[in-house]
Amino acid sequence: MTIPADIGLIGLAVMGQNLVLNMNDHGFKVAVYNRTTAKTKDFLDNAAKNTAITGTESIKELVAILKTPRTIMLMVKAGTVVDQFIQQLVPYLETDDIIIDGGNSNYNDTQRRTLELAQQGIRFIGTGVSGGEEGARHGPAIMPGGNKAAWENVKPIFQSIAAKVDKIPCCQWVGENGAGHYVKMVHNGIEYGDMQLIAEAYHLMRVALGINTEQLQTIFTEWNQGVLDSYLIEITSDILGVKDDDGLPLVDKILDVAGQKGTGKWTGIDALDLGVPLTLISEAVFARCLSSMQQERYKAAQLFSADKKPLFEGNVEKAIASIHDALYASKIISYAQGYMLMRQASQEYNWQLNYGDIALIWRGGCIIRSQFLNNIKQAYDNNSQLENLLLDKFFADAIKKADAGWRNAIKLGIDLGIPTPAFSSALAFYDGYRSQILPANLLQAQRDYFGAHSYERVDKPKGEFFHTNWTGQGGQTASTVYDV
Amino acid sequence: MTIPADIGLIGLAVMGQNLVLNMNDHGFKVAVYNRTTAKTKDFLDNAAKNTAITGTESIKELVAILKTPRTIMLMVKAGTVVDQFIQQLVPYLETDDIIIDGGNSNYNDTQRRTLELAQQGIRFIGTGVSGGEEGARHGPAIMPGGNKAAWENVKPIFQSIAAKVDKIPCCQWVGENGAGHYVKMVHNGIEYGDMQLIAEAYHLMRVALGINTEQLQTIFTEWNQGVLDSYLIEITSDILGVKDDDGLPLVDKILDVAGQKGTGKWTGIDALDLGVPLTLISEAVFARCLSSMQQERYKAAQLFSADKKPLFEGNVEKAIASIHDALYASKIISYAQGYMLMRQASQEYNWQLNYGDIALIWRGGCIIRSQFLNNIKQAYDNNSQLENLLLDKFFADAIKKADAGWRNAIKLGIDLGIPTPAFSSALAFYDGYRSQILPANLLQAQRDYFGAHSYERVDKPKGEFFHTNWTGQGGQTASTVYDV
Repeated sequence: MTIPADIGLIGLAVMGQNLVLNMNDHGFKVAVYNRTTAKTKDFLDNAAKNTAITGTESIKELVAILKTPRTIMLMVKAGTVVDQFIQQLVPYLETDDIIIDGGNSNYNDTQRRTLELAQQGIRFIGTGVSGGEEGARHGPAIMPGGNKAAWENVKPIFQSIAAKVDKIPCCQWVGENGAGHYVKMVHNGIEYGDMQLIAEAYHLMRVALGINTEQLQTIFTEWNQGVLDSYLIEITSDILGVKDDDGLPLVDKILDVAGQKGTGKWTGIDALDLGVPLTLISEAVFARCLSSMQQERYKAAQLFSADKKPLFEGNVEKAIASIHDALYASKIISYAQGYMLMRQASQEYNWQLNYGDIALIWRGGCIIRSQFLNNIKQAYDNNSQLENLLLDKFFADAIKKADAGWRNAIKLGIDLGIPTPAFSSALAFYDGYRSQILPANLLQAQRDYFGAHSYERVDKPKGEFFHTNWTGQGGQTASTVYDV
Repeated sequence: MTIPADIGLIGLAVMGQNLVLNMNDHGFKVAVYNRTTAKTKDFLDNAAKNTAITGTESIKELVAILKTPRTIMLMVKAGTVVDQFIQQLVPYLETDDIIIDGGNSNYNDTQRRTLELAQQGIRFIGTGVSGGEEGARHGPAIMPGGNKAAWENVKPIFQSIAAKVDKIPCCQWVGENGAGHYVKMVHNGIEYGDMQLIAEAYHLMRVALGINTEQLQTIFTEWNQGVLDSYLIEITSDILGVKDDDGLPLVDKILDVAGQKGTGKWTGIDALDLGVPLTLISEAVFARCLSSMQQERYKAAQLFSADKKPLFEGNVEKAIASIHDALYASKIISYAQGYMLMRQASQEYNWQLNYGDIALIWRGGCIIRSQFLNNIKQAYDNNSQLENLLLDKFFADAIKKADAGWRNAIKLGIDLGIPTPAFSSALAFYDGYRSQILPANLLQAQRDYFGAHSYERVDKPKGEFFHTNWTGQGGQTASTVYDV
């Protein structure tokens, strides 16, 4: 008689295969199923040869050889495919069995699935898995959420296969229902922001300062030794060093039209929905959209060519340092905004997210892994109730130190006509955030003028609303009907 | 026997009442119904006294006294209330009768309702109505969409009651299904942008240049004579002149925490969803969110007070002119982005929007009405297939002329630590839009490095994709599963 398997995994695309091999390496017995049986066979004959991994040819067979309570992980395409597999699985399952969705699902789907399955006695976990192929094989960052009653069962496997930093696994329980996929979504949004910030620094240096690709590689390699130390800076340096067949830098041959798959836009959409000013990630998403309007850009470049700006004539070393500081300060803003969003979502959905743990998870295995996340962890260790990362001393000091360079880098772009949407939106946010007075009083007056929306006063308690008949004419506008 | 009514209207909040009075003024016989009968009675005894308006006490009674095909307009709260009234109405209606929703409905609801009602033989129109109480009474801008088969019936009433500019009614057929409410949504988004731009100009002038409220009123009054001539500049000037009981400017007593009702955020969400870089309106929505984080702002103002910037020491007149140009150029960008969004939506939903007509509708009656919209109309008259407003000669020339001042105004804010999120994002968009080369090549390299997302090359045809094994190790990442 065969030993029952610890976990079943459905979906043998590369992420699924690599997670299975990773689990096998850590001593877990894994049974696998794939809709196309040939793929299962191919996996067992090659990558999984000489392992304890078991193949199955039906869901029924897969479920039958699992330990109870059964644990089945789906690594299939996000969306309706996940629901289809859940429907196929449920008839074979018993109370307290566990289904895990490890794809890039929208957190709203995960919220729904957790509740629906709980009603049928099935424990559901929706988990973010970050790190791509390499991460899945040798240690991803894992962000599990859903039905907490399943966590103790899943924890040994997930924490074994996860990346480790300082021996701490990059996998902690995130929160109920859709919390895990939400945090993965924010991770991806921050990734969009980080990439855009690096792109702006790169663009300013090559266009404004005329630095060539070889020198740029040296600069990013140096930056990777300091506060910007991170996977994305590291691979940027790698990329800048890769040559095409003709010996010229390959990066210069790549078309400047950026694709996207949707998690960045989800983050921006959720921020708008929750009323959190997530300006930087939104600008990063929009910058990709703008890059894809290539034909229009070419026309506009012709039309506005008379506006070409002069080349830079200052101190290049100083300008590079300013661009470094702009990148660092903007990165702090971006993470502060991402954490603001998670904080709002945590309140909205009652998730009780642990922000320090989230920084721990992201320290290794995933695309945004960096030294920087240790500073965030430290900030929440110092004050678990921290309202905003910008109010933490370390980050406040870092911003103050970077302040002058940040402004100079943006002004450099403005003078030379080089776009820095993320640097600029970060600075505008910072200057707004630290403004005791903003011009929203005028907005409120306008809204009251044309829509009788009423306003609060600086000299009266909050919650007391006033309306002024600004023109001396007319009556009461029904602001309940006329919404702006 | 009474003469049958031309139209029935449900919902006697002020917008509904004023539309009814407006219709009555133009010779249409209107029957009204309100859920609370007392409100109907009050309306008939007061505002509608000595008019031909008829009150009814039930939906059945309302429907019974209408001409066939019957036309019933709903002026009720957007959302489920609209669906409830539709459900109550339908049993009394016959094929080809018309239901109009004049509230601020989400266009997705209007898409659904148009289709559902068409299946039952009922013609549905979802229409934006802008202009608040005053507009509804004396001439709103009206943006009707839905079932075009109903347009000829509704047109005489709507075009009679709409605002007129140069004798042309601010009401034209917009498009099928949700097109009318979509265009109203974009109108409101642009309104958010316009208001934020005015707020930034106001804030720079008062904080950076130390201009007092009285002088500010003079400046806005002057601006209203030129290219910025618009309702929102006009009311800004009015507002700045209103004094509180103590003789001081009332606007200074208003709390700088801006509210919002949702249509601005809908616009931003839709732009993210459709992949249109609507940066300015999104920044405007986020600026309202940031304003509402008042307690945190106070703390941050303390913490970062050492970063207070010096006062301005240059030529004040020149700085004011720069701020004017920043406002004008940014406004052009905002409208260009809004039209980009409508263009994308028109393709997405097959609406065949007429952009010149939309400018005509917005010229009068609504909150964003302005001289500027004549220039937009002209641009589409010159070229109905215009890809982008920025490629129109008038707007291109205007931007070029404003270019230097625009940059100077933003730099002024940067130097003095005064936030200009909308000015800045507009400039970053403009500089990106007119960039033949953007740094998206590096993003594509990064995405290919960690996720095998592949890239196109500048020296190969579009649509041909390449993947590089950047590290010289590892195999193929399944980019179909790992989405970024």
